[in-house]
Amino acid sequence: MRVNYLKVIPGSMNRPRREWLTLLLLLGLVPVAVLLWFLHAPLLVLFAATGLAILPLAYVMGISTEELGKHMGPGLGGLLNASFGNATEIIIAIAALRAGLIRLVQASITGSIIGNILLILGLSMLTGGLRHKRQSFERKAATTRSTLLVLATAGLVMPSLLLLSSGQNIPSETITTMSLWIAVLLIIAYGGALLFSLHTHRHIFNPRGEEEEPEWSRRYAIMVLAGATVLVAVLSEILIEAVEGSIETLGLNELFLGVIVIAIIGNAAEHSSAVMLAWRNRMNLSVGIATSSSTQIALFAAPFLVFASILIGNTMTLAFELFELIAIGLSVAVVSAVANDGESNWFEGLMLLIVYGIVAVAFFFLS
Amino acid sequence: MRVNYLKVIPGSMNRPRREWLTLLLLLGLVPVAVLLWFLHAPLLVLFAATGLAILPLAYVMGISTEELGKHMGPGLGGLLNASFGNATEIIIAIAALRAGLIRLVQASITGSIIGNILLILGLSMLTGGLRHKRQSFERKAATTRSTLLVLATAGLVMPSLLLLSSGQNIPSETITTMSLWIAVLLIIAYGGALLFSLHTHRHIFNPRGEEEEPEWSRRYAIMVLAGATVLVAVLSEILIEAVEGSIETLGLNELFLGVIVIAIIGNAAEHSSAVMLAWRNRMNLSVGIATSSSTQIALFAAPFLVFASILIGNTMTLAFELFELIAIGLSVAVVSAVANDGESNWFEGLMLLIVYGIVAVAFFFLS
Amino acid sequence: MRVNYLKVIPGSMNRPRREWLTLLLLLGLVPVAVLLWFLHAPLLVLFAATGLAILPLAYVMGISTEELGKHMGPGLGGLLNASFGNATEIIIAIAALRAGLIRLVQASITGSIIGNILLILGLSMLTGGLRHKRQSFERKAATTRSTLLVLATAGLVMPSLLLLSSGQNIPSETITTMSLWIAVLLIIAYGGALLFSLHTHRHIFNPRGEEEEPEWSRRYAIMVLAGATVLVAVLSEILIEAVEGSIETLGLNELFLGVIVIAIIGNAAEHSSAVMLAWRNRMNLSVGIATSSSTQIALFAAPFLVFASILIGNTMTLAFELFELIAIGLSVAVVSAVANDGESNWFEGLMLLIVYGIVAVAFFFLS
Repeated sequence: MRVNYLKVIPGSMNRPRREWLTLLLLLGLVPVAVLLWFLHAPLLVLFAATGLAILPLAYVMGISTEELGKHMGPGLGGLLNASFGNATEIIIAIAALRAGLIRLVQASITGSIIGNILLILGLSMLTGGLRHKRQSFERKAATTRSTLLVLATAGLVMPSLLLLSSGQNIPSETITTMSLWIAVLLIIAYGGALLFSLHTHRHIFNPRGEEEEPEWSRRYAIMVLAGATVLVAVLSEILIEAVEGSIETLGLNELFLGVIVIAIIGNAAEHSSAVMLAWRNRMNLSVGIATSSSTQIALFAAPFLVFASILIGNTMTLAFELFELIAIGLSVAVVSAVANDGESNWFEGLMLLIVYGIVAVAFFFLS
Repeated sequence: MRVNYLKVIPGSMNRPRREWLTLLLLLGLVPVAVLLWFLHAPLLVLFAATGLAILPLAYVMGISTEELGKHMGPGLGGLLNASFGNATEIIIAIAALRAGLIRLVQASITGSIIGNILLILGLSMLTGGLRHKRQSFERKAATTRSTLLVLATAGLVMPSLLLLSSGQNIPSETITTMSLWIAVLLIIAYGGALLFSLHTHRHIFNPRGEEEEPEWSRRYAIMVLAGATVLVAVLSEILIEAVEGSIETLGLNELFLGVIVIAIIGNAAEHSSAVMLAWRNRMNLSVGIATSSSTQIALFAAPFLVFASILIGNTMTLAFELFELIAIGLSVAVVSAVANDGESNWFEGLMLLIVYGIVAVAFFFLS
Repeated sequence: MRVNYLKVIPGSMNRPRREWLTLLLLLGLVPVAVLLWFLHAPLLVLFAATGLAILPLAYVMGISTEELGKHMGPGLGGLLNASFGNATEIIIAIAALRAGLIRLVQASITGSIIGNILLILGLSMLTGGLRHKRQSFERKAATTRSTLLVLATAGLVMPSLLLLSSGQNIPSETITTMSLWIAVLLIIAYGGALLFSLHTHRHIFNPRGEEEEPEWSRRYAIMVLAGATVLVAVLSEILIEAVEGSIETLGLNELFLGVIVIAIIGNAAEHSSAVMLAWRNRMNLSVGIATSSSTQIALFAAPFLVFASILIGNTMTLAFELFELIAIGLSVAVVSAVANDGESNWFEGLMLLIVYGIVAVAFFFLS
């Protein structure tokens, strides 16, 4: 679903020197984070430094994925972009699963879904709306994705509902088996969504049918992508170590950390792109990034992590907390209401942000 | 609401010989089912044979109701079609109520509502969408019915909610009285819906204003209808006997049987009609069958069965399981999202089917 | 949001003598209610008389607020109208808070939200629809408000959800602090809504851009407003005293009283205006009154009363009963479905009223 969004990011076609300099400067955070880890820096400092260091890498992964995709043509390239679109989140989540922080991973899934449709979309609509009185986007693409989110909500609700309505006395294997079945159904929905948006109904999602020339050679793109992925993987290990320590020694709230903090780190690249596109009145792409990113998390990353967790040996089911489910349900409801008419304004953005604020307050108090 | 749908079923105007032969062949299953019952066949064999034998009878009831309706003019005929539209489900449900299988009846109500809007509509949109890139239907008719389903959900939710929030310690008469009140309100909504769709706003639901000449004489139609009804009633008794035995001896899951299996048997006639109409791009009628059938179940069959159960002496209330209510709520949400723009494609059909799959998985594990 | 609605109330521009006579006659109820209180009349009689006496005063408050607003120009005048639009409810609620009837106030908030969008809007659409086959209103204004209600629902749900998911063992200060944070967010949303509807996107909410000459002098308007406010305050004290006694001695259901009875008294002025406007096919204003009144309650009155309750010393949180939240959620869902296409008919009105009936039945049995 994430088809060629980055191509319209400012400077992506003709990336100016200043942007590269900023990027290089930011990438300087990577050795700093590693150094702090060697020096056994205080946990919160380590956490902050590692989180910051991941951000530019996520951006570089996005650009290189996109460049590689251009070499592969719209179909395969679109598939690549869609699958790697949330690679940062997935890498962090795998590190957390290996450390046994299952609740944290579930919470970061919730947080990514909510964050994309409330925080990113809200910031985009607010920012864009401050400059443009009324912005419009392709209605059908947005409502298809909000329907997909209703579908995903149905899937994510069921395991917890089984736990809830059977008074918790259900064997944990039943919940695992059920989660696996639902994960399979979600992946099928995801496959269908890719076929629909990249093949049979491409015109809805990419109305101008623009193709773009790659700027990077195939080899260069692969090398940059591989390098960035390795660095993100290393930093994720450090990040999770810091998180683990913080939870233990500082008594931080695992749910809040996952839903709000980790989710923001994992999605920061999408944030900046979507907001900048909205500011330039390219609302179609801005809405596309936010909504497709959250459907990818719900339909691809979540089931993928269920399978991965079993291989890793720390089984994660799809049994979320009631709180998370209600938060997802309400977010989907408010986004459906906002996206429904294919138009946005600053106040719709503000409403999304306030719902995000309400959810954040709720998770903060749910220690 | 089910106004003259069958008239566009292939061959209904000029029913060819081959179809009648198929039908006769299928009707041959009726004596087979009765014979198996006499021979005390294994329960699952008996169950399967009876279930299959009911299907062609339900189809014959549909045709004869429609033919009789043509003799009565659009108003009364529409009323007849609407009331008898789900006669098969109601007859099976009454047999189950007499056997005391109250949970099964409640579950089959849930299953019929969900099955019509997810399975039937999903199959129709998917099948139609494979042939036609984009299909459209009368938006206002579809959204009026999805609003009716939200209303019905509100009604069906309340008794369980009362049980839930009072910690179950509420006298059962209170739940019964409350169910009766809500049943009355649902029936009023149903009456309003008939008046609206058959009289004051007919043009929305039957845009072309087509009337059709009956093919059968009034007397023939009545005789066929009466005969088919009697046979369905007999077979329902056998079916329920087999179900009862299966639950006791094989430990089958009553909720799953009701929601998935019984609901599919009771609605198979609508299934085939709706899917064939979608294939022929008569999407308006296809969507009409699926949505009107589920509103009939929720607003007419459900309250009717509450009243009937009291007369029978095995009181059924409207206190459903939390699981069923969430499943209905999510189904209505996803259908509203899909029906909202008056257009469908194969992927919208697939999404409905996947939500159906998720619900089926959930009920399977909820033993 | 309540911008100049009353100006189109029959006779508001050229208020005929007959209406004033009716009003004076009705105002005669005020001394009757006070007299009954002095005479220690039976509680239910006192309750009925006081409730009736408040109705014309609420209407007078509405007119004088509107007249005063005309002197202040569209921006400030709109703000005044919006803030005083639900003054009656707020005054009654403050009297109840001082008497410690916290559940009653919460219930009357729920009841006002539900009553405005189900009862008032339902009656308006039904009444208008009996005369006009199809009525249309500004879609964007209606959907913006229904989105605001989804936002408000998210806010109101969270504190109870915290209680629910933590098994009630949470310190009450946590719930209070959380309620305060959410109240602040709701007020920000309200401020945004005012800015949006009165300033940046005025044209959506007041398409004709009509300004109207005041009929009353500024001084006269202030005096009438002050007088009516004082009388409402006095009567509210008596009303709450009667309610308190009724709950204690007659065992009346506090929740039902709040949700249905108190809410109807507090909103009767809006009721009559909205229904009359619908009858005259001024559907835009009619829908505007009902929807803006419920958003004002949810986004302004509810948080305002949380702050006020702390000052008064009888802290009211935003932790509502599960029942109330589901009722609000379902009401918002059904209204969103109905308002979504910018058109109404009698049957949509009937559907809203039936959902109101279902909710009323539920609260009646929840003693």
